[in-house]
Amino acid sequence: MKNRKLLMIPGPVEFTPEVLAAMGLPTTSHVAPNFIDVFGQALERLKEVFLFPDSQPFVVAGSGTLAMDMAAANLIEPGDRALVVSTGYFGNRFAAILERYGAEVVRLDPPALGDAPAPEAVEAALRAGPCKLMTVTHVDTSTAVLADVPTLAALGQQYGALVVVDGVCSVGGEELRPQEWGVDLVLTASQKALGVPPGLAILVAGPRALEAFRKRKTPVGNYYADWTHWLPIMEAYQARRAAYFGTPPVNLIWALNVSLGQILEEGMEARFARHRHLSDAFKAAMEAIGLAQVPVNRRQAAHTLTAPYYPEGIDARLLGLIGQAGVIVAGGLHPAIRDRHFRVGHMGAVTPSDILTTVGAIEWALARSGHRFEVGAGLAAAARVLAT
Amino acid sequence: MKNRKLLMIPGPVEFTPEVLAAMGLPTTSHVAPNFIDVFGQALERLKEVFLFPDSQPFVVAGSGTLAMDMAAANLIEPGDRALVVSTGYFGNRFAAILERYGAEVVRLDPPALGDAPAPEAVEAALRAGPCKLMTVTHVDTSTAVLADVPTLAALGQQYGALVVVDGVCSVGGEELRPQEWGVDLVLTASQKALGVPPGLAILVAGPRALEAFRKRKTPVGNYYADWTHWLPIMEAYQARRAAYFGTPPVNLIWALNVSLGQILEEGMEARFARHRHLSDAFKAAMEAIGLAQVPVNRRQAAHTLTAPYYPEGIDARLLGLIGQAGVIVAGGLHPAIRDRHFRVGHMGAVTPSDILTTVGAIEWALARSGHRFEVGAGLAAAARVLAT
Repeated sequence: MKNRKLLMIPGPVEFTPEVLAAMGLPTTSHVAPNFIDVFGQALERLKEVFLFPDSQPFVVAGSGTLAMDMAAANLIEPGDRALVVSTGYFGNRFAAILERYGAEVVRLDPPALGDAPAPEAVEAALRAGPCKLMTVTHVDTSTAVLADVPTLAALGQQYGALVVVDGVCSVGGEELRPQEWGVDLVLTASQKALGVPPGLAILVAGPRALEAFRKRKTPVGNYYADWTHWLPIMEAYQARRAAYFGTPPVNLIWALNVSLGQILEEGMEARFARHRHLSDAFKAAMEAIGLAQVPVNRRQAAHTLTAPYYPEGIDARLLGLIGQAGVIVAGGLHPAIRDRHFRVGHMGAVTPSDILTTVGAIEWALARSGHRFEVGAGLAAAARVLAT
Repeated sequence: MKNRKLLMIPGPVEFTPEVLAAMGLPTTSHVAPNFIDVFGQALERLKEVFLFPDSQPFVVAGSGTLAMDMAAANLIEPGDRALVVSTGYFGNRFAAILERYGAEVVRLDPPALGDAPAPEAVEAALRAGPCKLMTVTHVDTSTAVLADVPTLAALGQQYGALVVVDGVCSVGGEELRPQEWGVDLVLTASQKALGVPPGLAILVAGPRALEAFRKRKTPVGNYYADWTHWLPIMEAYQARRAAYFGTPPVNLIWALNVSLGQILEEGMEARFARHRHLSDAFKAAMEAIGLAQVPVNRRQAAHTLTAPYYPEGIDARLLGLIGQAGVIVAGGLHPAIRDRHFRVGHMGAVTPSDILTTVGAIEWALARSGHRFEVGAGLAAAARVLAT
């Protein structure tokens, strides 16, 4: 028996063999010509993958939280008002980060867990007082809620707020068109739908975000995250010149460039469609076996992960059984429902086979746990969607 | 012909095949039991490799500059006085980082480039006013100057300053005994003598540093670097429990654990001795072919890298020729001498063969450049030291 388990958590996800091979290459110098070319190409490809041609990408060693920190630290000056549209744990985290740099944060919480603040509530908050920026978590990994970025970005533009999108669990999988929709900054991490092992904080900033940074009157509160250091470095690699501020994570950037090439080969429209299709199949399976989901409706549900509730009488021990069946899924993260649900990531290089394997493992584990359902119904439901 | 060049820069360095294999393994969950074990073991091994049993290690996705930032952000409160013992570029950087978090920095510069501030000058500065902390760059990568950490740490302890050592270009190669010498915090990066590709900021904090953090009256100025988030995570992995703040860079931590195992198998005393031996051989070769070095004397010269000046009439084009001969070495970094010298890293998994290959490439390039010297004299000098 093969003993490696399929990794179906909302990041890190399954990576392609080519990406993993790049990870294991003998490292070269961060100023060697062949690395300069790769880093420069990766930065260019990021603009394509993010559908944000007029942006400046930043790639820095760190986690997704560093990318959030970088956005907040560079855009916020003490006393700035910031609106956080929260749909879960990561919205709340963004509020805490913005406050760390002196922002006066207005946090809009959803009317119920699994829901999102209404656009009317967002507009009212923007109208109540000028906001330097607003943050939207495109997909909150703790609730699997999908935010309506086009509507919210239009409101941000209308009221003069910089629109910052936390795309950690979305970029490279969920449909996102920053330039078309009026988003000013998108951030993400490598280990999600971009398909690269964890360790890279990635951020693309549009002209309005860069202008706000350039017009700062106070120094950036965070040394490592300060664009003053990183902007010349990114510009240098784009121009195929060497530059040094901190040593770039060479192997991760090689892997990033490989993955971005694979993403562009698939094409962004095809990639969005594949994520929708596989998500639809997986969610149909969960419904067929009687598992409710955290998002209050399908329109507000992410396509990069699914957050099913445990059925009555079943608890987190289910995760161990799913693991025995060969698939790793994730437990809850949001404090309010941590022990009541689990989370399945289906993004990046995910295939129809991965969906079926995962549904099969969940059915097997539920059957073992005494949940009453028609075994095979989930697989059949997924197969029907996959056949469309 | 093999076309990969030998990487002899002061980080990233050559990594072992086992470390690179760990980099390319299919990633697992950051809360999977087998990853928890590996991360927990890596944290324990760090205390052994750092010779700092009573410390708390931190391993976070980032560069060495993040490790410096983390030390400063967590230990400094606005208005604290900090003494920076500078021996080059990275001492100056530490001063800038400390100032970012509100420190009043007293920076002691060396009497001349390649030298270090005298202990008497350090003592005078400590006596002039209470310092919350002092920083020492163990090996400044820009000058190859080795600081006298035991003497400086004793002074720090005597005058009640926390002793913070930037060990980026030293830990795992250069003799360093934090617990014995009275050092309170040591930081480093993965890609130097610890032998892991770039992407990890690593820091171990002793009891006095942790106490100073716990007694803070103001919040840490940097969100991502804040130990308030990371301390419970490190404690959890050490206790073999899962915990989440930011997704750890799974593959890099696997690689770190492999490298730490190899380092401990060699043994710290043997490792220090090997670095001294190979450094002596390389430096003897540089002297034999008439190349002066940046450090003003051998007692103040690092064993992890060598910084030779170009001979009269030779400039940075030499690096390209050394590259043609199959070895990558680094150019200058310190603004005052950037174009007048080069830097050769010899740390981590470096072997006697690597030393000879590098000396041979430098001799070949110098001969091609018209430098007048006895070709082969460097190799002979290195061989004589290696035979001892």
